[in-house]
Amino acid sequence: MVKPKVEVCFTPNLYPLYNDDFDVVVAIDVLRATSVICTAFHHGVDKIIPVSSLEEATTYLKKGYQVAAERKGKIVDGFNLGNSPFSYMNNNLKGQTLVLTTTNGTKAIHAAKDCKQLLIGSFLNLQILCDYLIEQNKNILLLGSGWQNKFCLEDSICAGAICDELINSNKFQSVNDSSVGARYLYQSAKSNYFGFLKASSHRKRLKNLNLNKDIKYCLTPNQTDVIPYRVNGSLKNLI
Amino acid sequence: MVKPKVEVCFTPNLYPLYNDDFDVVVAIDVLRATSVICTAFHHGVDKIIPVSSLEEATTYLKKGYQVAAERKGKIVDGFNLGNSPFSYMNNNLKGQTLVLTTTNGTKAIHAAKDCKQLLIGSFLNLQILCDYLIEQNKNILLLGSGWQNKFCLEDSICAGAICDELINSNKFQSVNDSSVGARYLYQSAKSNYFGFLKASSHRKRLKNLNLNKDIKYCLTPNQTDVIPYRVNGSLKNLI
Repeated sequence: MVKPKVEVCFTPNLYPLYNDDFDVVVAIDVLRATSVICTAFHHGVDKIIPVSSLEEATTYLKKGYQVAAERKGKIVDGFNLGNSPFSYMNNNLKGQTLVLTTTNGTKAIHAAKDCKQLLIGSFLNLQILCDYLIEQNKNILLLGSGWQNKFCLEDSICAGAICDELINSNKFQSVNDSSVGARYLYQSAKSNYFGFLKASSHRKRLKNLNLNKDIKYCLTPNQTDVIPYRVNGSLKNLI
Repeated sequence: MVKPKVEVCFTPNLYPLYNDDFDVVVAIDVLRATSVICTAFHHGVDKIIPVSSLEEATTYLKKGYQVAAERKGKIVDGFNLGNSPFSYMNNNLKGQTLVLTTTNGTKAIHAAKDCKQLLIGSFLNLQILCDYLIEQNKNILLLGSGWQNKFCLEDSICAGAICDELINSNKFQSVNDSSVGARYLYQSAKSNYFGFLKASSHRKRLKNLNLNKDIKYCLTPNQTDVIPYRVNGSLKNLI
């Protein structure tokens, strides 16, 4: 029997080159959108509506929704939530619906709008996500969010971590070099993610915004057992 | 004084995201187009005309040119030269003009059609190329050819090797994660390129065509001192 595939696509703009034959897409934006999504569900948010544009986000804001809007690492003026996972570690949002737009993260989610199943991946839910994926006998695409459609290191390493776990289960195969490269990067990085990413452009940007605490949290694996997935255009927790 | 940039762009389709501000583009297709180009100049070819399509190649063939045409690793029917560097290690082509079209390699050259200076890079001319680039005080983009516009490991490692040498000279800076990632991959690969690429898709494809000898040759650094560059649409040797 032919093993199902697990492949890595580095950025949303490359998705059309990869999207054939994949049953499941895992959207990854480690710094910080998919880490925020996992954190919010872990702390009891009921539903997240991802939107691409600030215009859409503003429409929801006017309707009275809780809306998180981030651009270039900062909360957009007029919105009350941004892209720091620490903003979601409280009971205020428990049971609520949250609307979310970020620079890169929600773009990956929208790029994969036609896929059969969309899941949200990050270091925070790494193991539970891998366990779930290994149970499925399906072709899986790991889709990084990148930075303005350019390759980004932290998403590629997270994708490499998932890919590595799935390949090591002996139940999957990879054929693309992007998957091989992502696994190599993960293997080099895994003993010290924070140090490995020292030279990365995104870490430098966030460091300049005094967000080292956010970065360390987002790079710490297995802090939650949530698996966010898309249903009817919104995100819910699968488990 | 701000140091000039050296950056890595993994594939020709991503070139528009990177092409601003670069004075020099180095096109890289390790397996095997840019390795062939370096080999051909090393053995005395006077000029190489890179063409994108088989139609163009056929037009040159009818005019009596020596034409090399490769698709999917094999010589195209009707042409007498392909993409094996060993075909160019003789005196038959000395002083001659060669027309060349390959699956990926010439696409990178054409993608960078508007750049100020285009050079040809490979492991074969690694050191002489780096020495030349370090002498220039210019922004340099290292452009991989990829495989059907997807990331490919061997080009990225070669770009990482050049980037590493330039950064280590302390005369250049990198800001993109693609450059950081390429350097990491190079550092993991440099003790054993052939072993590192064992899992790469391109090596597997060529291995199936019994081209392990070609691969080993193309992965052996510093076999020539040629620096091919583009002038009036053709390639000549700079040195």
